[in-house]
Amino acid sequence: MASLKKVVLAYSGGLDTSVIAKWLQETYQCEVVTFTADIGQGEEVEPARAKAQAMGIKEIYIEDLREEFVRDYVFPMFRANTIYEGEYLLGTSIARPLIAKRLVEIANETGADAISHGATGKGNDQVRFELGAYALKPGIKVIAPWREWDLNSREKLMAYCEEHNIPVDFAKQKTKSPYSMDANLLHISYEGGILEDPWAEAEEGMWRWSVSPEAAPDTPTYVTLTYEKGDVVAIDGKAMTPATVLEHLNKVGGANGIGRLDIVENRYVGMKSRGCYETPGGTILLKAHRAIESLTLDREVAHLKDALMPRYAEMIYNGYWWSPERQMLQKAIDDSQTVVNGDVRVKLYKGNVSIAGRRSEDSLFDDKIATFEDDAGAYNQKDAEGFIKLNALRMRIAAGKGRKLS
Amino acid sequence: MASLKKVVLAYSGGLDTSVIAKWLQETYQCEVVTFTADIGQGEEVEPARAKAQAMGIKEIYIEDLREEFVRDYVFPMFRANTIYEGEYLLGTSIARPLIAKRLVEIANETGADAISHGATGKGNDQVRFELGAYALKPGIKVIAPWREWDLNSREKLMAYCEEHNIPVDFAKQKTKSPYSMDANLLHISYEGGILEDPWAEAEEGMWRWSVSPEAAPDTPTYVTLTYEKGDVVAIDGKAMTPATVLEHLNKVGGANGIGRLDIVENRYVGMKSRGCYETPGGTILLKAHRAIESLTLDREVAHLKDALMPRYAEMIYNGYWWSPERQMLQKAIDDSQTVVNGDVRVKLYKGNVSIAGRRSEDSLFDDKIATFEDDAGAYNQKDAEGFIKLNALRMRIAAGKGRKLS
Amino acid sequence: MASLKKVVLAYSGGLDTSVIAKWLQETYQCEVVTFTADIGQGEEVEPARAKAQAMGIKEIYIEDLREEFVRDYVFPMFRANTIYEGEYLLGTSIARPLIAKRLVEIANETGADAISHGATGKGNDQVRFELGAYALKPGIKVIAPWREWDLNSREKLMAYCEEHNIPVDFAKQKTKSPYSMDANLLHISYEGGILEDPWAEAEEGMWRWSVSPEAAPDTPTYVTLTYEKGDVVAIDGKAMTPATVLEHLNKVGGANGIGRLDIVENRYVGMKSRGCYETPGGTILLKAHRAIESLTLDREVAHLKDALMPRYAEMIYNGYWWSPERQMLQKAIDDSQTVVNGDVRVKLYKGNVSIAGRRSEDSLFDDKIATFEDDAGAYNQKDAEGFIKLNALRMRIAAGKGRKLS
Amino acid sequence: MASLKKVVLAYSGGLDTSVIAKWLQETYQCEVVTFTADIGQGEEVEPARAKAQAMGIKEIYIEDLREEFVRDYVFPMFRANTIYEGEYLLGTSIARPLIAKRLVEIANETGADAISHGATGKGNDQVRFELGAYALKPGIKVIAPWREWDLNSREKLMAYCEEHNIPVDFAKQKTKSPYSMDANLLHISYEGGILEDPWAEAEEGMWRWSVSPEAAPDTPTYVTLTYEKGDVVAIDGKAMTPATVLEHLNKVGGANGIGRLDIVENRYVGMKSRGCYETPGGTILLKAHRAIESLTLDREVAHLKDALMPRYAEMIYNGYWWSPERQMLQKAIDDSQTVVNGDVRVKLYKGNVSIAGRRSEDSLFDDKIATFEDDAGAYNQKDAEGFIKLNALRMRIAAGKGRKLS
Repeated sequence: MASLKKVVLAYSGGLDTSVIAKWLQETYQCEVVTFTADIGQGEEVEPARAKAQAMGIKEIYIEDLREEFVRDYVFPMFRANTIYEGEYLLGTSIARPLIAKRLVEIANETGADAISHGATGKGNDQVRFELGAYALKPGIKVIAPWREWDLNSREKLMAYCEEHNIPVDFAKQKTKSPYSMDANLLHISYEGGILEDPWAEAEEGMWRWSVSPEAAPDTPTYVTLTYEKGDVVAIDGKAMTPATVLEHLNKVGGANGIGRLDIVENRYVGMKSRGCYETPGGTILLKAHRAIESLTLDREVAHLKDALMPRYAEMIYNGYWWSPERQMLQKAIDDSQTVVNGDVRVKLYKGNVSIAGRRSEDSLFDDKIATFEDDAGAYNQKDAEGFIKLNALRMRIAAGKGRKLS
Repeated sequence: MASLKKVVLAYSGGLDTSVIAKWLQETYQCEVVTFTADIGQGEEVEPARAKAQAMGIKEIYIEDLREEFVRDYVFPMFRANTIYEGEYLLGTSIARPLIAKRLVEIANETGADAISHGATGKGNDQVRFELGAYALKPGIKVIAPWREWDLNSREKLMAYCEEHNIPVDFAKQKTKSPYSMDANLLHISYEGGILEDPWAEAEEGMWRWSVSPEAAPDTPTYVTLTYEKGDVVAIDGKAMTPATVLEHLNKVGGANGIGRLDIVENRYVGMKSRGCYETPGGTILLKAHRAIESLTLDREVAHLKDALMPRYAEMIYNGYWWSPERQMLQKAIDDSQTVVNGDVRVKLYKGNVSIAGRRSEDSLFDDKIATFEDDAGAYNQKDAEGFIKLNALRMRIAAGKGRKLS
Repeated sequence: MASLKKVVLAYSGGLDTSVIAKWLQETYQCEVVTFTADIGQGEEVEPARAKAQAMGIKEIYIEDLREEFVRDYVFPMFRANTIYEGEYLLGTSIARPLIAKRLVEIANETGADAISHGATGKGNDQVRFELGAYALKPGIKVIAPWREWDLNSREKLMAYCEEHNIPVDFAKQKTKSPYSMDANLLHISYEGGILEDPWAEAEEGMWRWSVSPEAAPDTPTYVTLTYEKGDVVAIDGKAMTPATVLEHLNKVGGANGIGRLDIVENRYVGMKSRGCYETPGGTILLKAHRAIESLTLDREVAHLKDALMPRYAEMIYNGYWWSPERQMLQKAIDDSQTVVNGDVRVKLYKGNVSIAGRRSEDSLFDDKIATFEDDAGAYNQKDAEGFIKLNALRMRIAAGKGRKLS
Repeated sequence: MASLKKVVLAYSGGLDTSVIAKWLQETYQCEVVTFTADIGQGEEVEPARAKAQAMGIKEIYIEDLREEFVRDYVFPMFRANTIYEGEYLLGTSIARPLIAKRLVEIANETGADAISHGATGKGNDQVRFELGAYALKPGIKVIAPWREWDLNSREKLMAYCEEHNIPVDFAKQKTKSPYSMDANLLHISYEGGILEDPWAEAEEGMWRWSVSPEAAPDTPTYVTLTYEKGDVVAIDGKAMTPATVLEHLNKVGGANGIGRLDIVENRYVGMKSRGCYETPGGTILLKAHRAIESLTLDREVAHLKDALMPRYAEMIYNGYWWSPERQMLQKAIDDSQTVVNGDVRVKLYKGNVSIAGRRSEDSLFDDKIATFEDDAGAYNQKDAEGFIKLNALRMRIAAGKGRKLS
């Protein structure tokens, strides 16, 4: 077992990470530094202070990272129209690099030689935390208690709490969700419980951030998003910070039943898992970003972005945000966004996001050329013949030599 | 001007292609063969016979190609989860190769040396028809009247009709949609009119195949699709042919407000254009196919398919269905589908398609490994440490040598 | 420590795997089955029998797999013009899947529950052996002694031999190469020793399969390769089996100083390593295969293959030959090769392979079109204008709207 | 026929473009501006002045663009290890964008409304010139005489000269190469003549820039290249400008028989053509750049570059240097090169370029980890087990459920 001096723990203030804090103190005889961040998970972070203090922890970091999270992680990711496996908006994945970065920075500030987190040994999050930490501070030690200890059942955990005087809110434990959940400003996720049967439909009672489409208002809501360099900077004409944009869209999206997703996904560690996600604001952002790009991006740039996107999504899903290859791709993606400016008007209605209009000073849409009416010579239809003939040439030669298509 | 003996015309029976038939006879002094196909556009094809006969046409082909269309074109395309530019389900694009193939086959049967079509010189369809024709019969001549004649306004067209005794249904002309439309079993499309302003929302009255989400039933409809090798073979337990599957899904999808799309797309000929599409059945198929694949496909196969898809979609959109590169990709895609078997239960509600469940004898989902509960040793969490450490190694080395990530 | 019944060992007959055989017997108290294959490494395999018998091993497999190796592994790989990191012809990588497959088959035949190999914990080969074994027989146990034991120096190994009466040919040990080497019909590799300094030039004395370009004959050798479906089936008009083709090309290539390579490569386990390789026949095959493809493949098929190749090479290098994604890609690659037939004439001279000619019944080269002389109308130069105009359209529109290229 | 005011002609000073100059004056009754650039083609450019003056041309541009050519076009391209169709170093392709840019700039300076060039209607160069011109100045007119006039034989051209008093150097015409050639600092190319038979070996007498490997010195030459940010900045310790670097490498490469290539390539206009190329310096640059990257680039960055390269090469070959997609990719490529610093020692010998050593302050090669000797714990071999186990997990699950690999 590694000898540790001081460890920075990603601490939620909840029961599991409280047990971890105690277990680290006891197992490694080391100092523990707690780090609790508000990334929009919707729970108070301040109460974590008292809990940490109660365990004798002296260095306690509690931070509001919402703006940084959306500005430096969520928005750059949406510039690429990023989706994993055709469906997943990467709500959990994108929050991890920021946590990893802060853990390392706090380790540097406090002279800690290790970090620790509460992710299990079966999931993607351990990978994301640890790849990030190793990439930013190669000599760091990582303690992943769920991979080490034997407290692998609720009963053993409770026994540990009793033994170590960790206060348990039994009322809360009883009403605890049967699902494993994770939330931040971009989404809330659900795993486990009946979801472990992919044929079982998710219960209505599970969802927390959105009303069902059935329960959403009977009249649509229209919202206008203003883009600058690929990011939303204003809603309905009102300038907003990145986090405020996402909070606003979550609210209006959730109220209109938008952003529920139920998928089976492939984890980086090699297994399939069922997950349900609510991403109201992100769902709107993806649709709207494609709309403003459709007007402003060159065709080949757009296609190149589409071709690169699955690889970029894999990088983020698998935990390689902090990698030179992600940064290299980001350079190309960001370069494409300088012209992605303008307005998108979206209609939100009972689960649907549809585009009601898009306009831009940087529009490449040319109605004089596109028109079905007389275009006054803007486009010479005769050019099409040569275009087709030469594009067909290789196939005409092949067919002329008897080559068959089957 | 090329000298022609006989030309096979893709003939809808409508006014434009009637003018073309006459114009071909007159301009080229050649025989015209008409070819009219039912590919599910929702209009009777038999009336085309009398109209052709009235113009003195002797060789008249009228065919029901709906099954062939869905079985050999639509279904293979959906095996790849094909979408163009992130949104478009390629409803128009995928119908063209079948028409091109039949035009060439009929030219071979009738001894014709040319084909003709009614697509304009600004669009993608001319490219799709002609690339297909050249690839299948390299010596064929192609007559594209819209690129040649000077009948480039409604007025001139009408004058031509009057002059040449082509009967015009003036009542129909008056109530004519202001949109340029195209329909087949997969979709109906709208272009032109007010859509030429990308900021203008499409009018409710434009849409023909679906009710609006607002007007759809207040209770959801559940449908179970059964897949074999990536294709739907039964709905709600009832075996169906490919065309029947799509017809059924169009009906139930359209009734639930599903499949409307409003986009600005990039044409192969180089301009942006605004299009609206209704693809009720296709929208359900795409979502359901991803769901059955999520359970049955290996992760890397799925990711490889996602990486190849944009290129495959471009091939179809640009008119390269009849090309060796499309066929090469299809081999890989089809190979992946042998295991894509099972059931998907979808919920349709006011424009939303959501997945209520998926199950398969070929499922790779392993609940014993994925579970949050005790997995009885099926998965060794300790393996994750080595997995992460070696995946991080290149970045640890780089960081250790002072390489910075920015 | 796992309890084992019987283990199949990839046994070279050399000292290291002899120690492993003994160590397995002693450590796991299990039966050992040895498997020794001739894959063209250039050493007798039969002597392994007596050595194994001397250790009391009863089930001894000695096999000549040269034809299978070239036919089912080397040739399919060369159909894709496969190179890793722009240089490496994957000589070691491609031999591992065959060994893994036979280890698993022998485990099935002999009722063994484990396999073992002599690859170290730092290299790629452990990964290739084990991924293959797990993919083909998921419940198999794998014993990798170099990752388990503490015999991690030459001294300890020798002490173990003495202690366990493993005969050591001290004469041979003394003249032992300072390099770690691996050979099969495709190549021989060198690592370690002075090569661990990337600035140090490899010594002439290291190379075993080829003369130096300086020492090669002063007159060139011409060889004509005949291809069928992408594979060489005859040399200079004489039909040959796959292994004979490669043996012949190794001989003539080596004699002409062809196929030496000195690179720094990136291992799958995360580190860079320096390797030197001699691949005389493979170097000729790659050049010649590109030449016959240049004449017979459609342009877009060729470009698609080039785009897929780096991913395919990664699969093989990283050990995923036995994976559904490699098989899926192979389907597309093999589909492209049906037309890759004809002759290539290569000139070999002092390290150079150059193409002296290529011809094919399936050639798509059309001299009537390609000619600089009068082509009698086979190609209409005027088509080029439309081709260029429409390909430029998107950029003309952008520039017309003031969009700048920097 | 378009009405022209003034046209800028890419003027070599040779017979063909002299005819074009006259033909433009006569056919369009317009002023002609000549533009003659030294891009290292190895011929004097100054004599073009007198020839242009003799035709009454008043605005004559003669420029030495060698440094700009190598610095802004050749070097950026080599940062991507760019090769078209596995072989071609793009020597012709990369010179065209610079010419197109200068033609447009001169049109802007002189108030010309058109440009003209001497490329034929069958080749790639017309496309490259014109796409570049349209992208940089969308309203420009392009006159491509070879697509317009009827002077399509040597005889007609000569008759035109006689008729228009264009002086013909008959001595030179007689000894004219039977090949169509193009040269710049990166390469010289040959097409036509006996090369139109792909089975015919190129004659020794054709090659102009390099001695044959047979005729090259019997002792090798060693050269050390120093890289900064992916570009060579010094040779054998002597700082050099970009053009000087390439000139020097051409000289030493050519003297050692390096850089001859004989291929059949696929033109963008749809036909296959046979070309021979001499690229002595470029051949050295490609090999050396890969070597310095092998030491300094992260693995995934290198692989991503390899995956993107074929697309990037297509862009350049097809004439899309001046496009937003090429610029987007360049951003990613250039970003990767900040660490590509150090020295590469190459050995040149009778046609061979081999790497004798590479070293860098930015090396990621870690001999403490890579070593076959005891690494003192720098790498934990046990990590490999978990790495392999989890990478195998998806395949173990599949095989465990009976999924077969064939």
